[in-house]
Amino acid sequence: MDNFNFQNPTRLVFGKGMIAELGTLIPEDKRIMITFGGGSVRNNGVYDQVKAALAGRDMVEFWGIEPNPSIETLRKAIALGKEKQVDFLLAVGGGSVIDGTKLISAGLCYEGDAWELVLRGSYQTTLPLGTVLTLPATGSEMNSGAVISRHETQEKYPFYSNYPVFSILDPEVTFTLPPRQIACGLADTFVHVMEQYMTTAGQSRVMDRWAEGLLSTLIEIAPLIRQHPKNYDLMADFMLTATMGLNGFVAMGVSQDWATHMIGHELTALHGLTHGATLTIVLPGTLRVLRDQKRSKLLQYGERVWGITGGTDEERIEQTIEKTEAFFRSLGLSTRLSEEGIGEETIAEIERRFNTRGVKFGEAHNVDGAMARKILEACK
Amino acid sequence: MDNFNFQNPTRLVFGKGMIAELGTLIPEDKRIMITFGGGSVRNNGVYDQVKAALAGRDMVEFWGIEPNPSIETLRKAIALGKEKQVDFLLAVGGGSVIDGTKLISAGLCYEGDAWELVLRGSYQTTLPLGTVLTLPATGSEMNSGAVISRHETQEKYPFYSNYPVFSILDPEVTFTLPPRQIACGLADTFVHVMEQYMTTAGQSRVMDRWAEGLLSTLIEIAPLIRQHPKNYDLMADFMLTATMGLNGFVAMGVSQDWATHMIGHELTALHGLTHGATLTIVLPGTLRVLRDQKRSKLLQYGERVWGITGGTDEERIEQTIEKTEAFFRSLGLSTRLSEEGIGEETIAEIERRFNTRGVKFGEAHNVDGAMARKILEACK
Repeated sequence: MDNFNFQNPTRLVFGKGMIAELGTLIPEDKRIMITFGGGSVRNNGVYDQVKAALAGRDMVEFWGIEPNPSIETLRKAIALGKEKQVDFLLAVGGGSVIDGTKLISAGLCYEGDAWELVLRGSYQTTLPLGTVLTLPATGSEMNSGAVISRHETQEKYPFYSNYPVFSILDPEVTFTLPPRQIACGLADTFVHVMEQYMTTAGQSRVMDRWAEGLLSTLIEIAPLIRQHPKNYDLMADFMLTATMGLNGFVAMGVSQDWATHMIGHELTALHGLTHGATLTIVLPGTLRVLRDQKRSKLLQYGERVWGITGGTDEERIEQTIEKTEAFFRSLGLSTRLSEEGIGEETIAEIERRFNTRGVKFGEAHNVDGAMARKILEACK
Repeated sequence: MDNFNFQNPTRLVFGKGMIAELGTLIPEDKRIMITFGGGSVRNNGVYDQVKAALAGRDMVEFWGIEPNPSIETLRKAIALGKEKQVDFLLAVGGGSVIDGTKLISAGLCYEGDAWELVLRGSYQTTLPLGTVLTLPATGSEMNSGAVISRHETQEKYPFYSNYPVFSILDPEVTFTLPPRQIACGLADTFVHVMEQYMTTAGQSRVMDRWAEGLLSTLIEIAPLIRQHPKNYDLMADFMLTATMGLNGFVAMGVSQDWATHMIGHELTALHGLTHGATLTIVLPGTLRVLRDQKRSKLLQYGERVWGITGGTDEERIEQTIEKTEAFFRSLGLSTRLSEEGIGEETIAEIERRFNTRGVKFGEAHNVDGAMARKILEACK
């Protein structure tokens, strides 16, 4: 096991009716800016619950943080926050709203343009931030990461700042989510765990078991959720899995990969594809191209998560990757570039971008432009 | 899943050589009291590492916190800390030293006798506390609990105060532990997880999988540790499992039991038995007496942790309990009261104590004096 330093200070406030706790979670003397995405929270009752919990408080609202939050939108929120001199941020939404609000909380403590912070990659001086999560997927509600896009240049980069001081997770708010958003959330969570698990074998028995536990849970609940999207316990399992999938709890002392994500970000930047839906295309390709490097872990994953024990090692690995791809297809998501009308032009552009930036992603730092091309060609 | 509120602020600083980080982890301006148990840290190099890391700092040492830390000893530490006006505590030792230091950190913020705090059950006003863990077992390094004894009355009660601000876990410090302490630590960790897992089935898929992952890890590493007690990766797995076994990470939204612990505490109070060694005696009895109540979870545990799938439900449950008891015996620990020379007199005294205090322990609040007798009679 590698040496590691772990701390996650976020308070999870989990369960039905918990949005009512907002009044006690945010100190009385704070001037709050509440950030929202589109209007879905107006229809599902979340907006009303938030307003009721914070009745009489000093606050301002900012609406319109879009999926894959853009610096163009966030600059407006930062300008509003500075004008109103807010000193507490409450993000009400999914991962995009929370990600965007992390940059807002940093941008409000920074004199220059917030895109400079994104290019810097991290900024630790921030306003305190709480969240009310409406879509289980990104894990942003219990980590310090964000991903910010810039429309004018079709760029999309990760950014690290502050952990939310609290996050409210009420599974009931997921009952009205569109099936495709749930599918993308399940896929996103699955691949988050894979990025921390599908690496060199034998690093930590506990982290392996916990990652496998999250993967098995997702595989078990996905078909049940399709049948019963308003089952509280199922959605609670989903919500908790999504948060535990990217809060550091399965990453202690082990290496990570993230090559699939970095390629996926480019597909979103270039084609506007939903994040989760890019991952289901790229991951099977990554596993096929890097199957020798990930051999031992693929065998372990196949056996423990999919129950694959028969056949030669090569057959077991092939079957394991097929099972993974079939799981993504069972969610109703694409697993091939051609299904999304993406071809050689995009592959060439991603290769060019990786080469220009000189990046080498992945656990083994071997996913450069050429390797990204190989992976994308395996996803055709 | 039940509603829950989760936060664990402790920073884990994990790995070889990490004791050297002490100098940066404790603010420069603090007057430190370092607390120790017996002299083992003088022989295994831990004391020297701590002193080197804190060279030149303003500090005082308190030695002699014993296994099952007593209020009699802790009062002396509190008196010393008040005299020296310390404002930071560093516990260097196992769970007993850390538990005791939690009471010291509260006692230093309290005017009256610290036993009053123990009887109160919790006290949140404390000095900051860091730890250097030397024995994986209790999980005290990443939770807010402690267990404090009073020799003069043979009492032993849980007490809740502060989470350590940091805990340093270097697996190398475990290389010189006596085999029996390792065995008790493995057993203690196993039963901690069982207290949070062996309850009503179907509450949380994630928590179930994670608890099973910890149990499976312990079962896998125990025989390997006996053969290779200085294998870094094995001891790292053990150390991480012990911490994760009682830091709230497997307790989100699920009910807990703790009846085995409460009976075990009485055996320690009355006979001085090591905590872990009381649990291996009581748990099989608890499972036998409460097998109907715990039926579904016993079947799940048997299948997922022990691979028991054949036979009738009754046979599977019987086999599961036998496997658990055999695991404890494989650690070299007793699983029957008679092996420790404990008989009817003690059973009667524990029954009397539970009745006098009017307690009803366990998930179903049905472990009163009479039920404790039944459980102990099943452990004869």
